[in-house]
Amino acid sequence: MSAPDSIETLIDLMARLPGLGPRSARRAVLHLMAKRGMLLMPLAEAMAEVARTARDCLNCGNIGTADICPICADEARANGLLCVVEDVADLWAMERSGVFKGRYHVLGGTLSALDGVGPDDLRIPQLARRIEAEAISEIILALGATIDGQTTAHYIADQLEGRVALSSLAQGVPVGGELDYLDDGTITAALNARKRM
Amino acid sequence: MSAPDSIETLIDLMARLPGLGPRSARRAVLHLMAKRGMLLMPLAEAMAEVARTARDCLNCGNIGTADICPICADEARANGLLCVVEDVADLWAMERSGVFKGRYHVLGGTLSALDGVGPDDLRIPQLARRIEAEAISEIILALGATIDGQTTAHYIADQLEGRVALSSLAQGVPVGGELDYLDDGTITAALNARKRM
Ligand SMILES: [Zn+2]
Ligand SMILES: [Zn+2]
Repeated sequence: MSAPDSIETLIDLMARLPGLGPRSARRAVLHLMAKRGMLLMPLAEAMAEVARTARDCLNCGNIGTADICPICADEARANGLLCVVEDVADLWAMERSGVFKGRYHVLGGTLSALDGVGPDDLRIPQLARRIEAEAISEIILALGATIDGQTTAHYIADQLEGRVALSSLAQGVPVGGELDYLDDGTITAALNARKRM
Repeated sequence: MSAPDSIETLIDLMARLPGLGPRSARRAVLHLMAKRGMLLMPLAEAMAEVARTARDCLNCGNIGTADICPICADEARANGLLCVVEDVADLWAMERSGVFKGRYHVLGGTLSALDGVGPDDLRIPQLARRIEAEAISEIILALGATIDGQTTAHYIADQLEGRVALSSLAQGVPVGGELDYLDDGTITAALNARKRM
């Protein structure tokens, strides 16, 4: 390789992003250098800014720039509904659909015997505490229709049975599908047709 | 969207990289935030470092960290052979094959009537000057087997006819293929079987 060390380092780091391999990382870095002022420098600054300011909401696990995210800080969203999602990408997908007006709880993954992920590795203990603290009347389990997603939903339903109304997204979520890959209409339909568990 | 502005900015910039669309950019940014210390901060620093130090070699167009790149600065590579490539990705592909011991000339693209790219938009004028300055005995036109690549090769061959021996990569470059996507063995075979023009 004849690229300078600093560029090799950048290529190696870029290749660790999901969706980019070594070859596409090289292409991306050459593109960045061709657009040094318009893209490389702004991107370096945007990353440094996010690294400095972004943090997990202490209440729900959403990403924001303060200890409490804008959704948790918004009293208008304290309507007694809590939507449980696997990760922040799913929260963003729900928000894009614009149909849900309550608050979220980001688990940070799903239970997985295979990967050794147990309840304490996720934000499951914090979920129960929010029921009283925020006067939650219904928890909507908006988890993917995968085996791990459904295992997680049933685990949570077992834990909270009798303490709060529980529902899950039903119609529209394709088997094996993940929320982040659904269009807004499908998410809206699934939420409106949610079924009691 | 409920992502903070700083994260939206980062997603928008990432989506401008080749190979990443809006959705994969969002996934990549979430991955970056999950690996803040291990990936996001190092990447921000690597980009800033490259933005600050990387520049085009004044002689050949290769990317380095000085006015003259390591290949042009290496007297051992002044063997009278000059390999003309379209872009730096192709130079790196040649270097990975390890078979070429001379110097390079990076055109910065190919002639294209459609895109309005003429000889003065590429490093073609500088090429003629290097023949005497570096006692070049043979110029190898290592351009892609695309219409624009071959048009460019013929244009350069016409310009330099009688002033220097000219050859082109022949065997092994698939029709419509680009150098950067070839394996090392194919590049080696194509270089060894180069034919006079
Ligand atoms: Zn929150
Ligand atoms: Zn050079």
